[in-house]
Parts: sequence; structure tokens; C-alpha cells
Amino acid sequence: MLNPFRAKPPAATIDNPRLIVHSQQPYNAEPLTYQLRASFVTPQHGFFVRSHGDIPVLDPATHRLRVGGRVGTPLDLSLDELRDRFPSRTVMATMQCAGNRRADMQRVRPTSGDPWAPGAIGNAEWTGAPLAAVLRAAGADEDATLHVAFDCADECSIDGKTFHYGASIPITKALRPEVLLAYALNGGNLEAEHGAPLRVVVPGYAGVRSPKWLHTITVQDTPSDSPIQAEDYKLFPSYVTQETADPAQGMTINGLPLNSAICEPAPHAHLSPGSATLRGYATATDRAVVRVDVSLDGGRTWSQAELEDQSGSPWSWTFWRATLDLPRGEHELAVRAWDDAGQTQPALPDDTWNFKGYLSSAWHRVPVLVG
Amino acid sequence: MLNPFRAKPPAATIDNPRLIVHSQQPYNAEPLTYQLRASFVTPQHGFFVRSHGDIPVLDPATHRLRVGGRVGTPLDLSLDELRDRFPSRTVMATMQCAGNRRADMQRVRPTSGDPWAPGAIGNAEWTGAPLAAVLRAAGADEDATLHVAFDCADECSIDGKTFHYGASIPITKALRPEVLLAYALNGGNLEAEHGAPLRVVVPGYAGVRSPKWLHTITVQDTPSDSPIQAEDYKLFPSYVTQETADPAQGMTINGLPLNSAICEPAPHAHLSPGSATLRGYATATDRAVVRVDVSLDGGRTWSQAELEDQSGSPWSWTFWRATLDLPRGEHELAVRAWDDAGQTQPALPDDTWNFKGYLSSAWHRVPVLVG
Repeated sequence: MLNPFRAKPPAATIDNPRLIVHSQQPYNAEPLTYQLRASFVTPQHGFFVRSHGDIPVLDPATHRLRVGGRVGTPLDLSLDELRDRFPSRTVMATMQCAGNRRADMQRVRPTSGDPWAPGAIGNAEWTGAPLAAVLRAAGADEDATLHVAFDCADECSIDGKTFHYGASIPITKALRPEVLLAYALNGGNLEAEHGAPLRVVVPGYAGVRSPKWLHTITVQDTPSDSPIQAEDYKLFPSYVTQETADPAQGMTINGLPLNSAICEPAPHAHLSPGSATLRGYATATDRAVVRVDVSLDGGRTWSQAELEDQSGSPWSWTFWRATLDLPRGEHELAVRAWDDAGQTQPALPDDTWNFKGYLSSAWHRVPVLVG
Repeated sequence: MLNPFRAKPPAATIDNPRLIVHSQQPYNAEPLTYQLRASFVTPQHGFFVRSHGDIPVLDPATHRLRVGGRVGTPLDLSLDELRDRFPSRTVMATMQCAGNRRADMQRVRPTSGDPWAPGAIGNAEWTGAPLAAVLRAAGADEDATLHVAFDCADECSIDGKTFHYGASIPITKALRPEVLLAYALNGGNLEAEHGAPLRVVVPGYAGVRSPKWLHTITVQDTPSDSPIQAEDYKLFPSYVTQETADPAQGMTINGLPLNSAICEPAPHAHLSPGSATLRGYATATDRAVVRVDVSLDGGRTWSQAELEDQSGSPWSWTFWRATLDLPRGEHELAVRAWDDAGQTQPALPDDTWNFKGYLSSAWHRVPVLVG
């Protein structure tokens, strides 16, 4: 765990009235889903925040990015040099936490982790230097078995261990053109809680692989040995418990399964009889969402939602809406998406339950009362 | 629908005792699953056959392959010229019919189509010329919006219409290195029922996009106008019927969802109490199978199957086995797979039911009696 800082950076305290705060220390917060659904491009102050320790306040004037390991020419760059030496590329991409919608899973039986609603996701225009360009400038070995590890300035504490955040991605993904070292979000500088002055953005992968407060990149033979990579963010079978889990046997979470959510109406909304419009999102990460079904009766019958105009970016979520006629009574609204391989979502949170509550991706169900 | 043949080719009659025949005309047949599971590489005579009309018997000495449309240099090649002018490449890949496991869906409610068990799938070493090399030799326009259409010698009849088989794939897929114009299967010449003397092999796509008895390739602005492409092999929502279906609104089936099956024991097997080994396959097409769960109790509880040595080809299925202790009684065995994006299969055939019975990919369930 590299740490080039002589002293621990000062920590930011975030007070953002737009977000529901699950935890102040570390700061974890998400928007209400109707606010999330209000804009295809999520504003920075409406974007969920997942942190694992203090939010460091770093000085962009003195911050350095170092690139080393299996490279021919190690780099040590100021942010100005990063901007000057490399092209600036903007990619619209959805970022989603591996714990998004965990609350649905926790209603089946308890899991570890914060009870994220469907708001631990956002879609933004990220601007930065292509990671591939930086790796190639460093003369990185491009052997497909290698890994690209990221070390960061945030000090985390998990299960009594204190360490700096680190994570890695396979070099095959790192060399793809959509992967950025981002310094801007929606055309503005990154705010502290989103990784200022420099973060990784890995479209199509869970947020854990897009580290914030980046200072060191290492091309290496093995995945990062940070507990974030080596122990946490692993997918286990349903019968594995906290006590029996062997991290080496868990699946490293990189890509994400097909997912969707009803953003409006809110759960337990009281609606008037008649026409009502449901709105939500769907996401298929490296595939395309081709259809979204909605149900008034918990999934016994379905109708088709309308997919809204897409952004043209293959890494963005899909917005959908459906206008339904709601009779009086109690109803369970439900949504499920389909991707371009004909894959759809499992029906029940129990179908994907795991003790860490990751990748909650069953049909999203919203109970409403009409009348 | 191009047809360069002066007379209709003679038709082969297939008599293969290794296969269960769903229909003799057209000839549609699949192996028993315990035979399928006996070999990671499926022998040609144990490979399922899906045809849509007569099985034409074509003369390899006179057969021609024509390449035209949006190309700079149309080609007209004998098979010897195809072998001589282009490199020979071998790709191990699983081929799966879009109707595989349809019988499970038909137990929920009727669909059109043959009642395929889990045997409409096989894994082979295909040898042929890379399609990309042939397209490039023809100076094909590589605009990413184009389609590559295939015309074939088999005369099909659907709903009273008679036409020659045709299908197409996006040029972006056609240019990928795994796509072949294949003349050999497991090192031997293709048999008549598998497309001799020349067929397309499109790893990762449903079998319908790997046409047999190929004679013409056309680079064009639109998908093939053959009924196979334009009307059939579309995925519709559960509430669409034969009467209400608008083919233009259905999803063209190319990629396939995550799937798995128990090949042994057979449904309704009578087993002795004690240790029993379950064996089967799982397939994730363009993704990797990372885990397979098996259940003795219809999915209430799960344990983990062992994944057998893989072939190293990303386009091959995964074989798994699990040894379980079976108590006396009636049990419902079940299997579900997980891919490297954390995606798993829906639980019930009803979750993906459609009136054409395509992409049946719920947990596979096998009732057994022990005692």
C-alpha cells in the first residue's frame, strides 16, 4: 500500500441536503430516486457517494501521479503535465456501486453493508486522459495476464485493519479506450467526495474499480493486494457466511448484472385511481437494454415500457417510462429488463442473496396504495 | 433470395440412431443428454441437427461461394480456391439452437416449435476460412452499420411460404476473428446435415445465424430479408401472441442468455440412496461461467458444483459435476449458473416464457425418485 503523503491529508466534511446519508463516517449517501430520475446526466451534487474512510482534501497544484511497475519508463506527473501531455477524452458512463439495491436483499435476510436503495448509481460525462495512453507513454508491458493496480490517498478501516484504498483491473480492460483518469465530471472539476483531483473511471465495472484520490498506478503480475481487492467486493454463494467465507474463493466483482429500478412512484406511495406514469432506469453494463417490462400485479402479468431517447453512449443507463391505468386497491408494481442477449433478471431477491449483499438485481418491486 | 442452382439439389435422408428425432421433414434431432455429456467435444454424429427444409446434397467439386454487395472486388470461388487463398483457422465453439430447452417452457403453457430437451447444443472444433479475411479480400465496406447476409441452398417452407434459407449478422460481428466459413468439423469434412460443403460458424450467436449450405455472401445496408431473419427467430414479450406479433417489434435473436442443464441423471430416474454424481453443462456465450450451483430441493438450498477443466476456448461450454448424498424420497434436482458479470438465471420457465418458446433458460429441474 503505497503512500507518498508526508502527512495525512485534511478530511472534508460533506453536508449535501440532496442526498440521503447512510453513514457520515465514512460518508455514504445516495439521492432519492425521483431526483435521480429527473436528469439523464446526473448532476455532481446529486450523485451517490461511497467512501471507505476519510474524504481527503488534496492540493491539485502539488498532487502527483506516478506510474510504475512493469513499465519501460516510469512516469511522475503533475496534473498540469497529465492534462498537457495526453489527449482529453470525454465518456458518458454510468457508475454503479456493487451494493446498489442492497436494501431489497436485506428484506429477505440480513447482510453486511449499508442498506442502499436504488440510488447508488449515476450517469455522468467524465473527462480525463485515456488510461491506455498513459500506460503506453510509460511503455507498459501489455501482456494480457497482467493487472493495473491503483493506489489512493484515502485511509480506510475495515474489521480493525487500517490501510490505504487500492484496487486493480485486468490490463485487457485498462487498455480499452473507455477507461479514463478523470479530472472532470459533467464539465466541472471533481468535487472532493468524487475523488478530486484525480480518479479512475472504468465504465462497465462496479464503482469499486473506479478509485478516487488516485496517486499511483502500478502494472503488475497479480491483482492489488489491498483488502478492498483481495478480501472485500467478492461474490459468494448463498450458503457461505461471514464465518465460512474464504476470500480467495469468492468471485471478484468487476462487471455487473442486468438491473433495473422503478424511480417513480416511490414505495408506499398513495396514488389516485386512473392513469399513472412509472419512470425508472435499466442498465446492462457491457450489453444493451432492449426491453423493459412493467407489472401492476407483482409480475403475474406484464406490459412494455417505452425506452426514452438514448444518449448514444454504450456505457450509459437506459431511462424508461410506462403509463398504466391503476384501479383502486393495493398493488405491487414491478419492473424487469432484458438485454440484447435475451437475458432477463431473476424474480426474487432471494435468488441472488449473498451475505455481503452485493449485486442485488432481482425484479424491483414497489408497493403502492391507490384510492 | 438468391438461388444459383439450375435444379433443386437432391435431398439427403438421415438415419442416425444416436439422435432423438423430433421431426423427419424437416429433419430435427438431438442427442440424449447423457450421451451429450460424455464428451467435451461433441462428435459430429452426436451433434443436434436443426434444419428448416430438405437437407441438400451439394457437390463440393462444383460448389461456388460468391461474395458481393458493398464490396470493391466481388469474389466467385470454388472450395479449393477458398482453401488455397485463405488461411485455415480452427475455433472450438459451442453451437446452440435458440429453441434449446423449449420443452421446459412448453410445460408452463404451449408454444410453437419442436419440444427440444437440453440437447439442442454441442461443442466442436470448426475449421475454415476466417470470414473477415474473405470480406477484406473482397474489399468490403467496413462501415459499422452494415450487415453481412448469407444465402443458402436449402429450400424452406414456413406458413405456406417457400423460400431459400437466409440470415445475416452485423458486420461488426462478421469481422471478428472467431467467425468462420467452415468446411470441417472436428477435423473431418462436414456431413450433409451439418451444412456440407460449407457453412457459417458464428460463435456466441444462436445457431440460426450460422447457416448451412452457404453459397452467397452479401454486404448490405439492411439485415437479410429472408423470413428466417425478418420474421422468425424474434424474441417477443410474454403477452404477445401468434396473432398479435409484429415481427418488426420483436428482438432479433443473436446472442444467447446464460444457460445450464443437468445431463445426468435423466428426468424421472430411479436412483439408489447414497452418493450420486450429477453432471451437466453451462454456457454464457460471450461471457465466462464462473460458478454453478446445484440443489436437491428445487432450489431452496444450494451447493457448489465443480467446474471441470476448461478447453481454453472462450467460445466453449463449461462442464460441471457435483457429488451429492441423496436420501430416500422424491427430489427435484436443480442447477443454475453464474457468469463473470455476476448474472444468474431466472428461476422459473414462466419468467422467460414467449409464444415461440425461444431462449428457455430458467433453472433446469430434474425430478428423481430415490429408494
